[in-house]
Amino acid sequence: MKVFVLGGDGFCGWPTSLHLSASGYDVVIIDNLSRRNIDNELEVSSLTPISHMSERLGEWKALTGNTIKYHMFDIAKHYHRLITLILEEKPEVIVHFAEQRAAPYSMKSSWHKRYTVANNLVGTNNVLAAVAESGLDVHIVHLGTMGVYGYGTAGMKIPEGYLTVQLETDLGEMVEQEILYPANPGSIYHLTKTQDQLMFAFYNKNDQVRVTDLHQGIVWGTQTEETKSSELLINRFDYDGDYGTVLNRFLMQAAIGYPLTVHGSGGQTRAFINIQDTVRCIRLAIENAPVKGDRVKIYNQMTETHRIRELADMVSGITGVAVNFTPNPRNEGAENELYVANDQFVGHGLEPVTLEKGLMGEVVDIAQKYSHRCDKRKIPCESYWNKDIADRESGAEY
Amino acid sequence: MKVFVLGGDGFCGWPTSLHLSASGYDVVIIDNLSRRNIDNELEVSSLTPISHMSERLGEWKALTGNTIKYHMFDIAKHYHRLITLILEEKPEVIVHFAEQRAAPYSMKSSWHKRYTVANNLVGTNNVLAAVAESGLDVHIVHLGTMGVYGYGTAGMKIPEGYLTVQLETDLGEMVEQEILYPANPGSIYHLTKTQDQLMFAFYNKNDQVRVTDLHQGIVWGTQTEETKSSELLINRFDYDGDYGTVLNRFLMQAAIGYPLTVHGSGGQTRAFINIQDTVRCIRLAIENAPVKGDRVKIYNQMTETHRIRELADMVSGITGVAVNFTPNPRNEGAENELYVANDQFVGHGLEPVTLEKGLMGEVVDIAQKYSHRCDKRKIPCESYWNKDIADRESGAEY
Repeated sequence: MKVFVLGGDGFCGWPTSLHLSASGYDVVIIDNLSRRNIDNELEVSSLTPISHMSERLGEWKALTGNTIKYHMFDIAKHYHRLITLILEEKPEVIVHFAEQRAAPYSMKSSWHKRYTVANNLVGTNNVLAAVAESGLDVHIVHLGTMGVYGYGTAGMKIPEGYLTVQLETDLGEMVEQEILYPANPGSIYHLTKTQDQLMFAFYNKNDQVRVTDLHQGIVWGTQTEETKSSELLINRFDYDGDYGTVLNRFLMQAAIGYPLTVHGSGGQTRAFINIQDTVRCIRLAIENAPVKGDRVKIYNQMTETHRIRELADMVSGITGVAVNFTPNPRNEGAENELYVANDQFVGHGLEPVTLEKGLMGEVVDIAQKYSHRCDKRKIPCESYWNKDIADRESGAEY
Repeated sequence: MKVFVLGGDGFCGWPTSLHLSASGYDVVIIDNLSRRNIDNELEVSSLTPISHMSERLGEWKALTGNTIKYHMFDIAKHYHRLITLILEEKPEVIVHFAEQRAAPYSMKSSWHKRYTVANNLVGTNNVLAAVAESGLDVHIVHLGTMGVYGYGTAGMKIPEGYLTVQLETDLGEMVEQEILYPANPGSIYHLTKTQDQLMFAFYNKNDQVRVTDLHQGIVWGTQTEETKSSELLINRFDYDGDYGTVLNRFLMQAAIGYPLTVHGSGGQTRAFINIQDTVRCIRLAIENAPVKGDRVKIYNQMTETHRIRELADMVSGITGVAVNFTPNPRNEGAENELYVANDQFVGHGLEPVTLEKGLMGEVVDIAQKYSHRCDKRKIPCESYWNKDIADRESGAEY
């Protein structure tokens, strides 16, 4: 079965491409190397030494005999190349990772807001318009985010995409309706994912495009079974203030003996998933595709929830490094509860890698092993969510 | 008070600019002339003879002594010009009409879908990002559409933007929440307006940008008090299959003695508003601005609802021309009810121009007067909503 992986050079896209190739899929990567280029802009590097694309693909071929094709172009800018490639290769599945995926990056400046909106929305619409135009029955698997839900509703488990509500009619009767869970994005990045959802719903309704949308939690961990098989296949590990997830930044700080930076009270609860489970979930989503006429299938792709200060305590407990509380650059509540349904992937047989089991490996095999490559000036977050927060942090006046 | 009118050369933008100028506002028009350029692409013209921009503005100055400034650039492409103009002119209000606004045009081809998405979403985000970046407390008044609601919920009056729902918590208790009315767009054009809403909500929450979003019904009528004052100020009248509203196409067909084309059963109910009321509503929205910290203010900008076949009967009754039922190129239900709340504008003193009173004037003063300029080949709608409908209409096979 032929699968396109849009954004197949990125942190989730690369290990997904290898996992699908190892599982017998015929993988074609399309990527404009934007993630590597953003490293240039931010003057940062992956902690792990990532190889050039030709080295990655050559090593994979040498180890497994499997060829992964690679096309370098921007799906948001080169529609004609996208539609011709779809018509030439006739993929059965398109896995769509080709979006700017860092909330702090999306909030750095007007330019970054505008880049994120144009790249993510125009790109997603191009994929959908191309599938509709092609006339092929392609299953689109999109990586979304738990962030589309905001922080949920007090006392309610977050359902998988759709919410049942009761409405009062003009005659005073209550009627039940299932709606897309009301969006409450916390950054421009998250905003674009809520807007993507509306595109999926429209093309699904109007053109019967089959779509699976994965509302993913925060990914932790670096390696998968496949990326571990050679250092030339190693996955990215980002620890900078923009692209580093909270856990990666704790690990990095611990590895260099720097106090763990917790923004605000650390009472924010977030959903997490290990990268190994991410790639398995993508495969499970492909294997359990919606059929023509089904509405958009939405999964919550996460396996556990933790408060940020719990994570800090876990890393502190393993490494002995202290925890340091600092002001929060994000515009968000200080504390929140979070309960999330993930019955569908569990029903498909997912057996999660838990933080409790996997964390020590990350400390030793990644953070400590490559700590000599760390530029510690890059760890603090320097994106401010709005002018008030920027003023508070910088002391500037308007 | 200084007001920017983005899209101030268009069908709603032009009479709004004049009405605001006549009401004492200092108006600056920004327009890339896209609407005139689309006429070139579609090989159509406004039935009414619209003047060049310099003629329009010169005539207005001659008649009233009022200067309207005009800048020609594309807000979706030239962000730097937009932000510098905002910083130079310091507008208190930005009225945002600068979106592609025809549903059939947005569905003509992949190119048209992509243009509508990129133009509308990137443009709206540019306006919001520029206002946030400027640090100025600008009130954004945006022209949205009733189409964001889809066709409503059976037995329920459509509220003004927000919907109260009941949710069941995990403990079995019912809690009440107010949410943005669930989106159900019927075309790519309508889709972009539902995505705009999410942008407004985000920038309002994160940056306290003051926004009024007007969910407008189908506009009918051509002239306003101001555009009537000279033929050089005349407003557009579109009757083609893409930009012509249903009523304009009936009027045009009647004027040239062609049977009135009703798509499907004509049982679709739609909300309407006269162009004179449109410009008054924009002024009322400016005069009743939200204050800093208010959520996005949403109005339903419509004054009456009718089934399409009722409209055809009204025009047929005035003109004696027959009604002809044809297959529907849109992907939509054949019949729907529609009840709409519009209490806020009525509360601000709006006294609507009714179809019953105004229709005869449109027949005589516009459709019949300029019927010699009609290219009747352009009246049919040739945009098909999806491949199945295109196949049915064209007899083509895949």
